[in-house]
Parts: sequence; C-alpha cells; structure tokens
Amino acid sequence: MKEVVLGIDIGGTFTKYGLVDKNGFIFNEGSLPTDRHAKVIDFITELKTSVHQSLGDNYNIKGVGIGAPNGNYYTGKIESAPNLRWKGVIDLTDLFEEKFGLPVKVTNDANAAALGEMLYGDAVNMKNFIMITLGTGLGSGIVVNGEIVYGHDGFAGEIGHTIVDPEGRNCACGKRGCLETYVSAPGIKRTVFELLATETKESVLRKYSFDALDSKTISEAANNGDEIALKAFEYTGKILGLKLADAVAHTSPEAIFLFGGLSNAGDLIFVPTKKYLDQYLLCIYSGKIKLLPSKLQDKNIAVIGAAALMWKELA
Amino acid sequence: MKEVVLGIDIGGTFTKYGLVDKNGFIFNEGSLPTDRHAKVIDFITELKTSVHQSLGDNYNIKGVGIGAPNGNYYTGKIESAPNLRWKGVIDLTDLFEEKFGLPVKVTNDANAAALGEMLYGDAVNMKNFIMITLGTGLGSGIVVNGEIVYGHDGFAGEIGHTIVDPEGRNCACGKRGCLETYVSAPGIKRTVFELLATETKESVLRKYSFDALDSKTISEAANNGDEIALKAFEYTGKILGLKLADAVAHTSPEAIFLFGGLSNAGDLIFVPTKKYLDQYLLCIYSGKIKLLPSKLQDKNIAVIGAAALMWKELA
Repeated sequence: MKEVVLGIDIGGTFTKYGLVDKNGFIFNEGSLPTDRHAKVIDFITELKTSVHQSLGDNYNIKGVGIGAPNGNYYTGKIESAPNLRWKGVIDLTDLFEEKFGLPVKVTNDANAAALGEMLYGDAVNMKNFIMITLGTGLGSGIVVNGEIVYGHDGFAGEIGHTIVDPEGRNCACGKRGCLETYVSAPGIKRTVFELLATETKESVLRKYSFDALDSKTISEAANNGDEIALKAFEYTGKILGLKLADAVAHTSPEAIFLFGGLSNAGDLIFVPTKKYLDQYLLCIYSGKIKLLPSKLQDKNIAVIGAAALMWKELA
Repeated sequence: MKEVVLGIDIGGTFTKYGLVDKNGFIFNEGSLPTDRHAKVIDFITELKTSVHQSLGDNYNIKGVGIGAPNGNYYTGKIESAPNLRWKGVIDLTDLFEEKFGLPVKVTNDANAAALGEMLYGDAVNMKNFIMITLGTGLGSGIVVNGEIVYGHDGFAGEIGHTIVDPEGRNCACGKRGCLETYVSAPGIKRTVFELLATETKESVLRKYSFDALDSKTISEAANNGDEIALKAFEYTGKILGLKLADAVAHTSPEAIFLFGGLSNAGDLIFVPTKKYLDQYLLCIYSGKIKLLPSKLQDKNIAVIGAAALMWKELA
C-alpha cells in the first residue's frame, strides 16, 4: 500500500485536495466549493466523503496537511480570515483529527507553498529564501536556516501587508497602502484604472468596466503592446521591487520565488521587478539575490505544500 | 583564575573593550581611537598592548568576540564598511587570532547588542525579538527561534536601509530615503532643519547651525516644550513606527527593543513610535508587540554583546 499524506488547500472560493507521496507526486486530486456550508463541520464531512469516493484501497494515509488563509501553525486554528464564510476562530486541527482520525497540521497557504518549494521545488538546496504568492492578495512564506519563520504568534510572513504608502489605497485588512493593494490581481487592475484616469493614451482596456477587467486581459493587452497595460506592469514591478528590497534587508535570502497569478505574466512582471529590486537593494546585497519563478508553477503547489507540512512532521 | 571573554566594539571613531564573564559582568574596560592607524594590524597591536596593560594575572581569557560595522559572522571579515578608515575586505578573525592566539568570532554591532539583550537583558526568555540600535545610523539585530538571523550571506538585519521614500533623503549608502536618514541622531537633525524651513514658529533651535546642533539639544528643547523639537520627535516616531510595523509583518517578534542614542530621549521617542506602530500594524498583530528600552541601556552593551557572541560559541 502506497504511503501518502492528504494535502488540502482551503481557498476563499474553492478547496483543493490531493494525496501526495513522500516525493511530492500527487494522486487523486479533487476539489469542492469552500463556501457551500454555513457550518465548517458540514464542509469537513463533505470533504471526507469526496476524498474517500475517489480513494480505493491502495493508499495508506499517514496524516493531513492543511494550508488555509490565516492558518496558524502553532495553534492549528484559522483566526479571523477575512475571506472565509466561517468567522472568528476555527479549531481546524481538532475538527479534522476527530473526523479523519489522523494527525493534522495547519499553516497558511503561502507557508505551505514555501514548504513545497523547499521539499520538491527549486529551493531544495536553499536554507534562506522567500516565497511570494500572487493571487487575490499577496502572501509570503519566509525561510531562515531551513525553517519556516512562524514568529512569536505563528503569524510571521505577511509581506503583503507591509505599507507602500500610509495614505494610499484602502486594503481589505482595514489599513491603507498595503503592498497587496498594488501587487496582486486586483492591485494591477486598480493601477490600470488610475492610469486610464491620468493618461490620455488610447488603450483596449478603456473598453472594460472595473468588474469585467481581469489580470489576464491586462497581460494580453501588454503582450500586444498596449501602453497603458505595459505601464501598469512597470509600476507593479517597481512597487514589488521596492518592498522586496526591504524584505531582503530583513532576512537576506538567497532567492525570492514568485508563484501564481501575476507571476504567470513572465517577463512582463519579472523584468521590472528585478530592475527595481536591484536599484533599491543596499549595496552589500547587490547582484546576490535571485528572483525566480516557482518550479511548481504549473502544479498544485498549495496542495503539495500542505502535504509537505505533514511529511516534515512525519520525517 | 576568573574565566572571561574579551569583548570588543569597533566603532567608526572609538573602539571599546572589556573583559566579560559568563554572567555578563564587565571588568577592565578601556577604549582607544579606531582611526589612528592607517594599517589595521597596527591598530590591533595597540589594542593588545592596551588590553594587557590593564589586565594583571587574574584572568583567563577564553576567546575574543568582536562587534564591528559590516562585520560578517560567516566570513569573520569586515566588508566595505563606509565609516571605517580601512577599506575593502578585512579579515578580522585571521588578524586577531594570529595576534591574540585565541578563538575569535565577529558580527556586526547591532547583532552583538541583540545577543547581549538575549543573554543578559530583558530578552532572556524571548525566542523572537528585534533589537534596534539608534546612533549615527540605525542598526538592527533580528532574532528568530532564539537565533540571530544572519541570512544567506551573513548580512541580514539591515532595517536601517529599508526605504521610507525612494525619492527621499540621500543616504551614506548611496540610496535615497533609507530609514536611518530619518531615524538616527543625524536623521532627527535633518527633520528639525526641514521643519525650521517649513514652519514659522519660534524655536530655540533656530540659533544653531547644522554643524552645531545635536540630538541631545533637540531632546532638551522638546523637554522645555519647544514646538519644533516636539514635532521633530513626533515625525521621527511616525516613520519609525511605520517601518517597525513592516518589520513585524516579516518575523512577528514578541518585542522590539530600542537601544542607545535617540532611545535615551525616553517618552519623547517611545510614545509616538508606539502610537504609530499600533496604527500601522496588521490587525492580527495588534496589541501583541512590546516596544521596550534595552535593559542594558546604561551599560556597555556592544562590548558585552560582542563577548556574548564568543560565550555562545564556548557554551
């Protein structure tokens, strides 16, 4: 019987899962909506049924690893996640252990992605690196001396909420000017709308409502030479480069990985980010910091990373 | 015979040293100018003579710990320190080991201060904290899981060179708008001069040239109710609070310690810094982060901390 860990990535809209072996290979992937059930226990019941329907008898599940927004490694709980239907503090570990009868470990999704890169990606030989996940928000997992930095309270690594401009854009967190209001899928859209207001240049993006525009459309426009779209990527890379230079001044990583969402735009985002990162870096770090796409870019990294969390415990 | 470590704090102008026992008590302190000798080896020879003149036969020196600007823990070298007379890369460890015939460890001065606080100060029971040293510049030592963060290259913890404003004040490092151009002894002086230019309020500080004004005079003026001086402290605390909130979002410390220089101004700097730190913190950290004066404030923390580096090796 194949030994596997059940990796679960709880997102705001969908939850993905898969069985992951020790080498990071993923089997029996599946998904279900996160927000169908008002009670978290009903969600877990549906998840268990869904997992076992596709399972067969060939697998020996050793444990469950979960990546979730505001998932806390120390407490095993989700605490005040703004984009989940279940409010307050949810004791995920207790609930999953009871339902599955297996050991359970929880962390946030960006930490899970960092673990995935460390165990199965291009950070296998790195002791100090930072994983940046770009999606609806900007998540980060910081690795120092080969360990995820959890900090005093388990909530370390919120680079998306470092402040670009204290009088800047409103953030879902209640503050203003957080990095993720500039660098994320909605962030670059906000930048496009600022540019459409400021500039007089023609642009295909003038045909879209705010609700209709997405970051993929902005990428396509940029690839077709649209000046507004290109300028939006340049600005996004400038802000990201600036705040990554700050991040380097904290933990001096060997590399910074970009994963998901905007990072799929390739050179459009990597070239300006690298340019401004180098410009804003303190000279002792100059030329030392690699800016890389995640090796697990096309894979279900959040599920693999969540499983990696459990595999690390079992090791 | 008393077992001690020789702790050395190499500053731009003066070098201080002392013999430090395992409990952090310091004996036979002394100092000498750092910049008298064109060759570093002549400086080390004078230092050795100076140490041994005051020594007597009662001490068994187990090793040498050195805190120095741009001192690198991994390489044992000083690399490109802008405010030292000796340029390029200096292999301190080799030179001191040869001269003293003792094991030698090197780190930068802020890391040494963090170690001092961890071994002998108020961070004795803390696993995650940040030490900020305020002087001519702003140094930082970051502790995660009970260990100093050195990063990939040994140069982690340069919070003084995170960027407040990429179009802001010129920094000695060659960049613009670094935190230490706002928050340091020269930084608050620059703020005062900006305020004197912008505002029309009367102020005792209008009587000073830029060269003549120092941060102690600004503190005295503030304590006497001078509005420009008070405003300068408020602004300094705002900038520091903002960038410390960013630092918290990286490593989520239990406490941040302020040491030396400006931190001696007490409430003048602590009150606004705490206010703005709380304002700019992501909600999950709210009310959790202690902002404290270093317990070793009045002691020779850099010497004690440098010795602590060696004591940690000997443990």
